[in-house]
Amino acid sequence: MRSPPAIMPTIYCFEESAILARKTASILHARCRKIHERRFPDGESLVKVDKSAAREVVILRSLDHPDLKLMPTLLAADALRRAGARNVTLVAPYLAYMRQDKIFAPGQPISQRVIGGILGRYFDRVLTIEAHLHRIQRLSEVVPSRRQSESLSAAPAIADWARASGQDCEDCVIIGPDKESRPWIEAIAKASGREFAVGDKHRTGDRKIRVEFGELRAHRRAIIVDDIASSGATLAATAQALRARGIRAIDAVVVHAIFAVGALSIIRRGGIRKLVSCDTIAHRTNAISVAPLIAKVLAGAA
Amino acid sequence: MRSPPAIMPTIYCFEESAILARKTASILHARCRKIHERRFPDGESLVKVDKSAAREVVILRSLDHPDLKLMPTLLAADALRRAGARNVTLVAPYLAYMRQDKIFAPGQPISQRVIGGILGRYFDRVLTIEAHLHRIQRLSEVVPSRRQSESLSAAPAIADWARASGQDCEDCVIIGPDKESRPWIEAIAKASGREFAVGDKHRTGDRKIRVEFGELRAHRRAIIVDDIASSGATLAATAQALRARGIRAIDAVVVHAIFAVGALSIIRRGGIRKLVSCDTIAHRTNAISVAPLIAKVLAGAA
Repeated sequence: MRSPPAIMPTIYCFEESAILARKTASILHARCRKIHERRFPDGESLVKVDKSAAREVVILRSLDHPDLKLMPTLLAADALRRAGARNVTLVAPYLAYMRQDKIFAPGQPISQRVIGGILGRYFDRVLTIEAHLHRIQRLSEVVPSRRQSESLSAAPAIADWARASGQDCEDCVIIGPDKESRPWIEAIAKASGREFAVGDKHRTGDRKIRVEFGELRAHRRAIIVDDIASSGATLAATAQALRARGIRAIDAVVVHAIFAVGALSIIRRGGIRKLVSCDTIAHRTNAISVAPLIAKVLAGAA
Repeated sequence: MRSPPAIMPTIYCFEESAILARKTASILHARCRKIHERRFPDGESLVKVDKSAAREVVILRSLDHPDLKLMPTLLAADALRRAGARNVTLVAPYLAYMRQDKIFAPGQPISQRVIGGILGRYFDRVLTIEAHLHRIQRLSEVVPSRRQSESLSAAPAIADWARASGQDCEDCVIIGPDKESRPWIEAIAKASGREFAVGDKHRTGDRKIRVEFGELRAHRRAIIVDDIASSGATLAATAQALRARGIRAIDAVVVHAIFAVGALSIIRRGGIRKLVSCDTIAHRTNAISVAPLIAKVLAGAA
């Protein structure tokens, strides 16, 4: 292993993000260090980092279950600065609260702006993967950090997987569950040399979803691609609609494997054959790594 | 009931602080409203307040278990401002993270400054009760809010309780477990017309504590007074030292009833007869209300 160039950031990670952090550090020939996290019986956290930190550091931690993770993550940034770090970048491969981007009912907050404001103040830069940004174009509008924050696209990595995985079947279609995902699905389809189609998604209850397709022929295989799987209801409803069109072999790729309790059995009962995810959130379905993507951007910044 | 003066703040509270909030509002003849809080299966929170909020508002919520509570509390402040509030005061009768006020071991953060910085930025003013401030004098040094933040003393309320509760026994001594608490214990003793003594507290392990007293005669009754009871080990060790001095009737008063799992049985086994707490954290031992104290300061500010 080459010794790390002086300018390459040291990657600090919390326990649950260690695999992705090590992969990223290894691509960059950078150092990877653990942040020790402890929660006391009274609910307070305490973190500990190296007593002497590099000038350029990255904290890698996905902010799923954000309320519990936010404070220890901010404490880690404070500890690193006090230990000598000058630039602290947060790589949060999954960034929660992006969906609450407007007041949907009177009396609600705009949670996206609250979390964005905090992160923008405590980190010099924030990187995430496929932030769920509907009404705005760029993460930097939400996260007012000193250096430009960015949401990176997982489309190329997913396209690579779809191309490699579908070698045994030429008649494979890439499916997006809703019309909003059309540009993203089209990019993945083009890059993997496939056809594509997007559904029309209707929410008929808290966990009840119906997906409809216009023209769609009975392809031999379909790969459903979605950014987040939380309840699993969207994937299951999409698979049901595809079967109704005569498609039998249905696989699914999600970027962020949130998977609330019960989600995996909903997806399984939905008739999905193979389910894979990107490694933005550590989960046994992880099959597509975003480490090269993160490493490329960090190397560019260094 | 008189109709509230226009200038009196509306008190918004989360479910677990409702009793204290209602008491405080009732003293002030102010309105008291609930903040609706919801946590989704993916760990995100959503709050909802009235669609139209008063100009002057208070959010009342104790920040024990701070990591879970911080984000919803900030979301509530955001929601209230978007609903029309101009001044948002946080009354956090218990404020966590005050004890991590310096780097105790290399690589640690100064958590007190992190939470203080966030609260000072998101609230116009923060009020708390008996913040555990060792190395600094004033909460405003920790919480850089627009209007001066303050930690209020519960000493007068505790003294009132001690005076009333000890009417059947003239020979009652007020006890502080450690030397640092001396000025506070002395104030409570004087205001309740009692003698006092403070111990010498040694930590011999994570939950192992020894308390020693110099000169101390066999009073007929003792009331141990402490700011926080978390593991219960300090109260139990103090009671043990008092019994060794021939004191048989031992009661205890704590301001903040944190009580980690197992604490109450440690305290009971320690031989404490009666255990009461202030209502800064809702608990069945609550017997001394801080509502008049909070109301007085809020009325003065209005």
